[in-house]
Amino acid sequence: MSSKTGETRTESKHRAILEAATEAFLKSGYLGANMDEIAAISGVSKQTVYAHFGSKESLFVEIAGGMTDDASNAVRDAPLEIDRSEDITEYLLNYALRQLTVVLTPRITQLRRLVIGEVSRFPELARVLYERGPSRTMKALARLFEHLTEEGRLKADDPARAASAFNWLIMAEPMNRAMLLGDAALPTTEELLLHASEGVRIFLAAYGKK
Amino acid sequence: MSSKTGETRTESKHRAILEAATEAFLKSGYLGANMDEIAAISGVSKQTVYAHFGSKESLFVEIAGGMTDDASNAVRDAPLEIDRSEDITEYLLNYALRQLTVVLTPRITQLRRLVIGEVSRFPELARVLYERGPSRTMKALARLFEHLTEEGRLKADDPARAASAFNWLIMAEPMNRAMLLGDAALPTTEELLLHASEGVRIFLAAYGKK
Repeated sequence: MSSKTGETRTESKHRAILEAATEAFLKSGYLGANMDEIAAISGVSKQTVYAHFGSKESLFVEIAGGMTDDASNAVRDAPLEIDRSEDITEYLLNYALRQLTVVLTPRITQLRRLVIGEVSRFPELARVLYERGPSRTMKALARLFEHLTEEGRLKADDPARAASAFNWLIMAEPMNRAMLLGDAALPTTEELLLHASEGVRIFLAAYGKK
Repeated sequence: MSSKTGETRTESKHRAILEAATEAFLKSGYLGANMDEIAAISGVSKQTVYAHFGSKESLFVEIAGGMTDDASNAVRDAPLEIDRSEDITEYLLNYALRQLTVVLTPRITQLRRLVIGEVSRFPELARVLYERGPSRTMKALARLFEHLTEEGRLKADDPARAASAFNWLIMAEPMNRAMLLGDAALPTTEELLLHASEGVRIFLAAYGKK
């Protein structure tokens, strides 16, 4: 728990609870996380935790949604745009490396594992993560590919399908390894570069203009 | 619980326990599944369950491993081979549709969710699923692509990377949607065909001989 200047007492409590709860959920899972412990670590009463967040469920949704938004924002902090003079291969490679670096962290992969494990008990949470994470990212990519197709620089008649193909060519292999093999399976920087280069090459072989 | 002719009493008990435990784990998750209930449903004592399987953990590993083997065997019941006269596009499309159909069932997706949710508590289980599932399938594909490259019908200098690309072009999108959005997101047959066709097209644009 830390405090930031300019924060009201209420804002600082809110943030302290979020920080403590994030650590508790990531460490112990949804069922395992203990609301008494979260209150104690954030230095407030359990009543205050409930006053701020309503329930353990909505606290978890708030945290998962916030972490997902942060990751999505870090992948693209503005609409995706390429100048006419910019090389598409290089642009896509940089985009891919940014996305891999932001998403493949122990915190995000652990959040994703927790959320997937809770789908039957807690479908709304996984939907939040899907819509504010991969779905949002793919929609932005689809708009870019549509634009590039209009400019005659790409051949993606179904931009949404092309965006999905690009996204999974880049993310699927390392993400699925990390899901099942744990964080020890997170790729090295060198391996990421090889993987991303090949993903971009495959994508442009299918959707690039010859 | 059913009995099969030619089974000994021990074999039939073993199978009854496996069937009851499979349903219990899929329905309630690893922690939620109750060994007393599993014993009662399979009509044996709890001691018998432990005598057959040692522990709840090894029972879960046995079930997850068995379901994974069954799925892998259904995807390919023999080494992957293509006759010289056979069309590669058609072969890969059939392979992709078989894999999608076998893997994208409510039972397999639910097993995968459970296993992913238990990675931190239970890393060995996820490793079993990875090695006997996607890893085994990709190795068989890599051998096929290596062979086709030697014959000059494909251009896959790194067959393992090509196999991974093909696998995830086909599996990633529907599997990841199903992981997060639940079984209601499992694709229709028509959507699967469109998706698989595009996956094969992308793969051959990158690795096919022009």
